[in-house]
Parts: sequence; structure tokens; C-alpha cells
Amino acid sequence: MATTLSDSPLSLLERVADPGVLRTLPADQLPLLAHEIRQFLVERVCATGGHLGPNLGVVELTLALHRVFDSPRDALVFDTGHQAYVHKMLTGRQEYFDRLRQTGGLSGYPSRSESVHDLVANSHASTALSYADGLAKARQLAGEQDRAVVAIVGDGALTGGMAFEALNNLGTAQDRPVIAVLNDNGRSYAPTVGALAGQLGALRRGGGTGVCRNFFTDLGFVYFGPVDGHDTGEVEGVLRRARAMNRPVVVHVVTVKGKGHRPSETDAVDCLHTVNAVVPASARGGTRSSTRSWTSVFGQALAELAAARPEVVAVSAAMLQPTGLGPMRERFPQRVFDVGIAEQHAVTSAAGLAMGGLHPVVAIYATFVNRAFDQVLLDVALHRLPVTFVLDRAGITGPDGPSHHGMWDLSLLAMVPGLRLAAPREAAQLPALLAEAVAWDEGPTVVRLPKATAGAPIEAVASMDGVDILHRGKGRPLDVLLVPVGPLAHAAVEAAGILEHEHGIGCTVADPRWVLPVNPALPSLAARHQVVVSIEDGVRTGGVGAALSQQCQDHGITTPVHRLGLPRAFIPHGPRSQLLAQAGLDAPGVVQAVRTATANRPAHRLSSLQRHGGAG
Amino acid sequence: MATTLSDSPLSLLERVADPGVLRTLPADQLPLLAHEIRQFLVERVCATGGHLGPNLGVVELTLALHRVFDSPRDALVFDTGHQAYVHKMLTGRQEYFDRLRQTGGLSGYPSRSESVHDLVANSHASTALSYADGLAKARQLAGEQDRAVVAIVGDGALTGGMAFEALNNLGTAQDRPVIAVLNDNGRSYAPTVGALAGQLGALRRGGGTGVCRNFFTDLGFVYFGPVDGHDTGEVEGVLRRARAMNRPVVVHVVTVKGKGHRPSETDAVDCLHTVNAVVPASARGGTRSSTRSWTSVFGQALAELAAARPEVVAVSAAMLQPTGLGPMRERFPQRVFDVGIAEQHAVTSAAGLAMGGLHPVVAIYATFVNRAFDQVLLDVALHRLPVTFVLDRAGITGPDGPSHHGMWDLSLLAMVPGLRLAAPREAAQLPALLAEAVAWDEGPTVVRLPKATAGAPIEAVASMDGVDILHRGKGRPLDVLLVPVGPLAHAAVEAAGILEHEHGIGCTVADPRWVLPVNPALPSLAARHQVVVSIEDGVRTGGVGAALSQQCQDHGITTPVHRLGLPRAFIPHGPRSQLLAQAGLDAPGVVQAVRTATANRPAHRLSSLQRHGGAG
Repeated sequence: MATTLSDSPLSLLERVADPGVLRTLPADQLPLLAHEIRQFLVERVCATGGHLGPNLGVVELTLALHRVFDSPRDALVFDTGHQAYVHKMLTGRQEYFDRLRQTGGLSGYPSRSESVHDLVANSHASTALSYADGLAKARQLAGEQDRAVVAIVGDGALTGGMAFEALNNLGTAQDRPVIAVLNDNGRSYAPTVGALAGQLGALRRGGGTGVCRNFFTDLGFVYFGPVDGHDTGEVEGVLRRARAMNRPVVVHVVTVKGKGHRPSETDAVDCLHTVNAVVPASARGGTRSSTRSWTSVFGQALAELAAARPEVVAVSAAMLQPTGLGPMRERFPQRVFDVGIAEQHAVTSAAGLAMGGLHPVVAIYATFVNRAFDQVLLDVALHRLPVTFVLDRAGITGPDGPSHHGMWDLSLLAMVPGLRLAAPREAAQLPALLAEAVAWDEGPTVVRLPKATAGAPIEAVASMDGVDILHRGKGRPLDVLLVPVGPLAHAAVEAAGILEHEHGIGCTVADPRWVLPVNPALPSLAARHQVVVSIEDGVRTGGVGAALSQQCQDHGITTPVHRLGLPRAFIPHGPRSQLLAQAGLDAPGVVQAVRTATANRPAHRLSSLQRHGGAG
Repeated sequence: MATTLSDSPLSLLERVADPGVLRTLPADQLPLLAHEIRQFLVERVCATGGHLGPNLGVVELTLALHRVFDSPRDALVFDTGHQAYVHKMLTGRQEYFDRLRQTGGLSGYPSRSESVHDLVANSHASTALSYADGLAKARQLAGEQDRAVVAIVGDGALTGGMAFEALNNLGTAQDRPVIAVLNDNGRSYAPTVGALAGQLGALRRGGGTGVCRNFFTDLGFVYFGPVDGHDTGEVEGVLRRARAMNRPVVVHVVTVKGKGHRPSETDAVDCLHTVNAVVPASARGGTRSSTRSWTSVFGQALAELAAARPEVVAVSAAMLQPTGLGPMRERFPQRVFDVGIAEQHAVTSAAGLAMGGLHPVVAIYATFVNRAFDQVLLDVALHRLPVTFVLDRAGITGPDGPSHHGMWDLSLLAMVPGLRLAAPREAAQLPALLAEAVAWDEGPTVVRLPKATAGAPIEAVASMDGVDILHRGKGRPLDVLLVPVGPLAHAAVEAAGILEHEHGIGCTVADPRWVLPVNPALPSLAARHQVVVSIEDGVRTGGVGAALSQQCQDHGITTPVHRLGLPRAFIPHGPRSQLLAQAGLDAPGVVQAVRTATANRPAHRLSSLQRHGGAG
């Protein structure tokens, strides 16, 4: 391994190049190994950024899992894989941690392309028990029930409905062994909400083994717990007993998020759930992610709106602080509802709030709206209920990888009848668009924010029918209409300048602000241009460009609409600007696309359209 | 009321024109009223078709609800609204039952446009508790906690994860009263699966009131039950006590699906869950829905595939018989898994099965895949797992209305990287396409079936690169390429004949069979035509036509692609053929669209393209 750290030798950790070596270690060496792992984690994660608190909490648990089970013959399925760093270290990937979450480097989540020990690359919560159910069924059909199936699930993830769906199935098959390891640190990001969390608390206090029945035994599981998750010997012993049961078992392991690192343990917000890179890391102890200015602008704007409009309430799915609801909760605690990791319920309870005369604002990451499409469609839109969704981290997000890019929301929501979606081009526009969204009471509205710092504002040179004209072409031989979505307006305006000065191509840049449904002014604006190029940081399939193209066609407008967007592909982790550039969604990419699109126009058509002027 | 029924006078029922009248009735008249309601239900539902068993089971319960609660001041939220016929009868809609589920007639589900007593028009299961949570929060903020919030939920719906998400939230707020009425008939369609159903069974047998704690009390609810749901007096009494608690309460009501109607009670499959129209109804007692030949062709084909391929297993979400899994279960019971109403878990457990080396076939209605988009996207496709989804009732379904039309699947699944989707044009093609789907092991596949009887097969006149040419144009002045999806091939071929003979417009009809991703042969075929018209019975936004249009553009092909499909709107109930015609998706609609599209072609472009021939 290339690096040596300052305070202590890493000889023991370095020796553990695979789980087989770990299993040969004498138990009395494990505390030292755990210490080395924590030191490694704090130094490396503070250097690169990443998930710190969750991984510090599962050091001993992960050691025990790899000593008791024989991965990959036995299946270890990590839910919400950001708790899998220790697992990565123990399965031959220590040396790659210096490029954690960087382009081409180690993923911040399990990754099937990295290791045979990584089964599930998905970082959305509450799925592991379902995978385990399927794996256990497959083992049973193959007569391989000696191959253990283990799901490691946080208490926060248990609030997600699909985890319950899985428990409800797992518990019925007494001849199909599965071990559900409940990593109970009492938190998702923040403390876990809901009645079940109260039950877990009672089990923790009750000391466990004397309890004859509880939530899990009701569902058919043998219950072992609570177990001190920082005592490797105790955890190992219980896991061995669990395995020997050959039945569905819940092992309730109590851990401390951020364990062994004072700044993490004592952090009141989320136990340093995620940190950004800081140098020197170990000295400062890591900081929380930098100010997300879009998020904080939203948080402030919402609190002010709530002050002005008593019907405004807010709903969060276990992401109250990360989505910016902090300021509103401070001022109006009784009007902010955190429902836990439970996106479906978040949306439909918002429908209920709206039915009760309120205007709920559901603050959620864009990628998680995938979890509640049916609820947005039927429970909200079919009932024309005034619910506003604020989608944070829309578009390319960066280091969290494929399952966190908010790239599906535009295509998903474009289908929803009656839904209106705004994409402010900069944070300064956000308060006004949010206010418009909340003032709309005929159905769902959406406001979409990137995970980015706010750029310098672009002033509109004109405005027509709600469309901001950001740049106006000057009678060049070819007239191109650029229609960017949200912050991609910056790339569009920059590209328009380059096209005009370097390539003699005149462009209009039109920012509709409300991008769905298509503003009726856009087709007529398109008709006055020879090529339209739409630019969005969502999957191109079915997004804003597709809607605009269709709308033009429905109006009998033959101007072709070239759609720039993200490919129909899973996009790996990397810096937002770099990934956008790779997808051609920066100024050079737009310039290139416009040149190609204009070069493709048939000559006779171009000449026949020379008489048309620039933007309207 | 226009109709009088044969055997008994309906004077009592006729008098109950609204819930206010019902509340004034002496209790001793309720058994007679219940008898009249059942007679009405059996005669009317057998005459029009509709949900029979579920409504026969809730007669006394619904009477009690409307006597104890003052709708609409108190909120009655029915989950999976097909149990709301009695509620409709008691809220002034008896006279409309003769047009139940017919175009312009009474909806088979609650409908906000029909009555202020109908709050939730959604027929997807497990949502009512979430609505109730939102309503209760709104009541609390308004200081109107005297307005009761009641959710009526079946035991089958409790297997849905979002119901658990709601329970987990409801149980934490002891100062926010909600009454969850659990209508426990032990069934969804078929008997309810899962560990919780076992718990409910134990509560039913245990006699209830002595039980100090159970699943619901663990989650913070006061538990009343079990209550005999056919004893109006007992149910009324318990509901009044529940209301007086001013806390979250579960009232566990035990009912018999199909109660009071021998053919329903004794039907072994699903207690005559749904019946088609039969005459004379009361004599025959109703029959189950007619043979759905596409479904049965699938069921047979799957059983044969399973015999040939031991890795094939099947997964159902509480719809084993309706989706055609019966034959496979008969032959290979251990390879068919019913997970309950739990679409998210169905999909991700299938991912686990695939990870375990099997090839799962998830048989599900198209509309319910909305519930599991995130799981299809991330849990299956991101992991490139070989799972086949068979979407029954895709496209316009008919009498069940907006939430049952399978019109979102194409647009939804078009986004999913690596997913392949086949749409057989007739049932005879289904076995071969299913076999192709199951043979593909590099990622998810989908086969999409309509709710329709199989049409007469259309033979291909040629086949190229997987595209079936069903009709070839004959050098007319205009060449049009028609690209239908699945069974809409019939409308396309018929339209091509009309266009050729009556309008002198030559058409090629190309059925790609695998419609997503776009077959690479289609853009080059499009290039040899002057207009492309795609035809699909899904929402146009982002569907197959949009994908084809984009693919053409990416290949530099300027032939315009006109997209026919369903509007971005909620489509009411009505016969499939009629709704398709309304959307222009029948032969006359296609003819009209082609004529418009060809009329719009600029003349100079048309003449410049005269030299191009017909299909390739």
C-alpha cells in the first residue's frame, strides 16, 4: 500500500487483504484492527470526502460478518451501501481509497464491477431484504441452503415500505433461512422517526433476550438482541447462533454512528454522515458538506413563504436538513412533517394535507421521486391536488454515482397530466418561482434545483409570455433557437456568444422557466427559427426536448428540434462539471451540437427560410 | 327510481337517499336494509358487470360507518375503492347503477366528480392510510380534530409497503386521532399472503379484547377487535368507542367476502371479485370475467417454458390467477412466488432471484409497474439482471377507469437503460416473444399484452432485421411508414388499405415486435419514406414514437415522425374499442392522421423526394 499514516502502524490492516486472512486472526487482535480501520477511515474519508459517520459505526459489525460468513459463497447484501467502506477495506480495496468517489476511482457504494463481494450497487434505501428474499428462494430451489443469505439494514431503512413488504414475506417461510442484521444506531440521517423506532428503543432498553414477543417475532422471525455492535466477540457469537437456526432471524445490533471519532459521535445534525475533503483531515476532524447555496436559498424562501401563507406546510422523507427545511422547522415546527425514509407515504400524505385545505411542499432529492411516481400520478395529479415538489439535486449530482444522479425526473414528470414544472436558471430566481408554484392551486407543481453553487445571474434581455429571452440573434445566415432547462442556461448563453462570434451563427436563447408543460409561446418562437436545440440535464428520452418537439409537430411547425440531454445510460460518479461536459452539456458541447444540426439542414430548405428574422 | 326488482320491495333502500336519512333509521330496520342492498347489488352488478364479492362483504360495515360518522364533515377514505358500491348507494347514487362502469355512467370506484362523499378516486391499493395521515394533520393544524378521519383498508392492502409507512407515522402521533378500519376478509383477490396475515388470523381466533399487545399496539394504535363485520350494532358500537378515544385506533372488522350470496361466498378462486354482465343475473349468480385469451395464452406459454427451462420462476403481486400464472403453479408450485400486494418487493425479490441464477418472470398489470419504477430501474437494470416482466392489461383497459389504464408503461420503461420491450401484435406471437425474452440474459426484458381477445393473425409479407413488414406500399405519390405498437398493427394494416385504395397514399406497415429500444433498421426504413407515423396505446409523451423520432434525428434522418398515442390526460372508463377510437387509434383515426401529416409536407420537399421508392 502506497501511503503510511502518521500516528500508528497499519501492519495488521495491511495484512488483511481478503476475508480469508481475517478469519484466521485471533480474536484478541480484533480491537487493534478495529482501531486501525477507524484511523484509516478518518484520514482517508476526510482527505477525499465521503460517508464517515455510518462507516465508523459498523467497524466491528463488518469484521464479525466477514469472520462468520464466507463471502461471496455466503451473500452479504448491504442496504444503502454507503455503510460498506469497511467491507471494501476487508475485501482487497484498501489501496484504492485515495481515489474514493473520484472519476475512475473507488465508488462510494458497493459496485459489482469492483468486487465479487459486492452484490448490490444501489444506494436507495430499503432494498436489501427484498434481494435477500429472492436470493434465499434461489438457494432453496438449488438445494444450497447452506449458503447463508445476510441482509444488513439500518433502522432508518426499516421505515421504507418495501422493507416491510420483504419482512412480511421473509417471515412466512420458516424453511428458508435469511439473516436480517438490523444495524440500529437510532438514526437515518437524523434520528429515525416513526412508531417502529419507538419499539426498537424499547427493545434496546429492555435488554432483549427476556422479551418473548415483539414486532419481528410477530412477523415470523426469531429475534436475537439487542447486541452491542462494538463488541466483535458478542456480535460473532450471535451471528453464529443465527446461522445455526436455519430460519428467518433478525439480529438486532446496536451501534453508535460515528463511533470512535469524537467529532462524528457528537455532531448533533447527522453524526458527520457525509464529509467533504478537508486537509489536514485528521486534525480538523472533517466538516459537513459545504453550504449548498441552492438548498439554503430554497430553505430561506420557504420559511418566508410559510410566514406569509399559513396554508403552507412542508413534508420530508428523512432528509429534513439536507433538503433545506431547517429554517422552516425553526420558525414553524408544527408545520413541518418528517415521515422517515418513506417516499410513497410522503407524497400521499401530502395529498391528504392538500385535501385538508393546506398547501404542502414536499422537499425531496430528485432521484427519490422515482420511488413515488405512482403516488404523484394518481394520488396527487388525478385528484388535482395542490402539492408542490421541490426536487433538490436534480440533474448530475457528482460523487454519489448512478443511483443518485437526478436525471429521471423530467421524463417521469412530463407524463403526469396537469403537472407544472419550473427549473430556475439560478438560485436568485428560485424564490419567485417557488412562490408561483405555491400560489397555483389546480394541481401539482414542481421546482427543480441542481446540486451546485449558484452561478452569476443572467439578466433577461426581454420577456414574452413567461419566456425569458437571454440572448438575441443578430440576423446571421442561420437562426438557431436554444432552449435550455434551468442552470444549463449558462452553457446556452456562453455557446450563443461563441456561435455568433466564431462561427457566424445567430442564436436566440429562450429560458421558459416553467419547462413542463411546454409554454405555448415556444412553438411559435420555434417557427421563426430554422433549428431548435433543447438542452437539459435529464435523460433525453421523453424529457423537455421531446415534449417541445412533439408540441411543435402538433402545431404543424416543421422546424426540427434537436434534443441535447443525458444518454439513456447509468452515469458513474465524477464531478458535475466534468460529467456535464462529457455529455455535451457545456458550452463547447452546445456549440458542437448546433454546428452539426445546422450543417445537416438541407440547403434548399435553408435558402427558402432566409427571409425569417431572429427571435420574437 | 326507475327500476323495481322482482322478489322484494325496495322501499327501505329507496328511502335512504342520503346518509342523514340512514342515521334516523331505527336499528331494527338495518337487517332488512342490508338484505335489500345485497339484492340490489347482485341484480345490478350481474347486469352491468363490476365488483361483486368485495361489496357484498361490506354492507353492514358501510351502514355502520355512515351512521356513526357524518360524511363529508367526517372523512371516509376507502382504500382500493371497488369496495365503495354500498357507499355510493347510501350517498344518493342508487339510480345510476344501471350504467355502472359504462361510458358516461357511474364509475366503479369513488369519484370526486360524482359526490362530495367521495374523496379518493384512486383504485391502486394501500393509499388510504397515507391520505388519512395528511387529512388528520390538516385537521389538527386547523383545530378541527372533532372532524373524524377514517380509512377503510382491506387486509390485502396491508401487505403494501406504503400502508406500513403510514401506520408507522400514524402511530407516533397520539394527539392526532385517526381510525383505521381494517376490513379483514382474509383475502386480496385470493387469500392474503404474508406473515401479517398470519397475525390477523391469530387475532381473529383469539377473540381479541383480551389481547394486551399485537402488531398494531406495537405501532402505537389502540386496538379494537375482532368485530363481527356483519353485525351492524356491534360495528356501530365499536366505531363510536373508537371515535371517543381521540387517538390512533385500529378497528379490526372481520367480514366474509361475497357475504349473503352463495355463488360468491363459495367461489374458490376470488369470491367472485369481479363479474361480467350476465342475464338473468340473479338466476345464474354471476360469472367471473370472461376468458382473457391473451392472458391464458401467456399462462400456457409460460408453463411450457418453465418445463423446458428449469431456471424459469414466476413472481406475482397478489394477482396470480388474473395474470395467468395458474397453469405454471399447477405444474411447478415451488417455482411460483406470490408476494402479496407489494410491487416494489416483487421486483426487487425478482432481482434477488436473478442474482441467485434464476430467470424470474414477474407477471403484473401494466398500471402497477408504476409502483416499482425505481426498483426496475436501479435494482434490476442497473445490475443488468435477467428479469422478464409480463405486463398484462397494457394500454386501454376499459371499465376500471383512469387508474387502471396501462398507458404509462412504455414511457416509463423507455427510460430504463438496457431494457428491451416486446409488444406482440397478437396472442399467437406471444409464446415466441416470451421465449426470446426469457432467453435474454443481459438485463431486463418486458412483454406487453392488452386486455383484449386475440384478433385474427396478420401474416408478415416480409421480415428484415427483426422487423415484420405487414403491408408494402405500391409507389404512390406519397410514401408513409406506419409503425404500430403491438395489437395496434391491426388498425395500421386496415388504415394502409384504406389509404391506398381510397386516397392513393402508399403505406408501409412495419411491426418491430421489439419496440424498445428502437430497432436500428427503423431509421433507415424511415429514411426511405417521406413521413413516419407511429401508433401506440400509451401516453404519447416519451413513448415509442418519441424514441423513434429521436433515433431518426440522431442518425441525421430528417423524415418527420408523427406520434399517435394517448393524450397526456386521465382517461375515464369505457369500452376499449371506443376509447381507442376517441384517441384516434383505430383505422379511421390513423387514416385521418396520415392525411393530415402528408398534407402538411412542404410541396418542394415532396417533389424533391418523388424519386424514393416504397419499403425496403
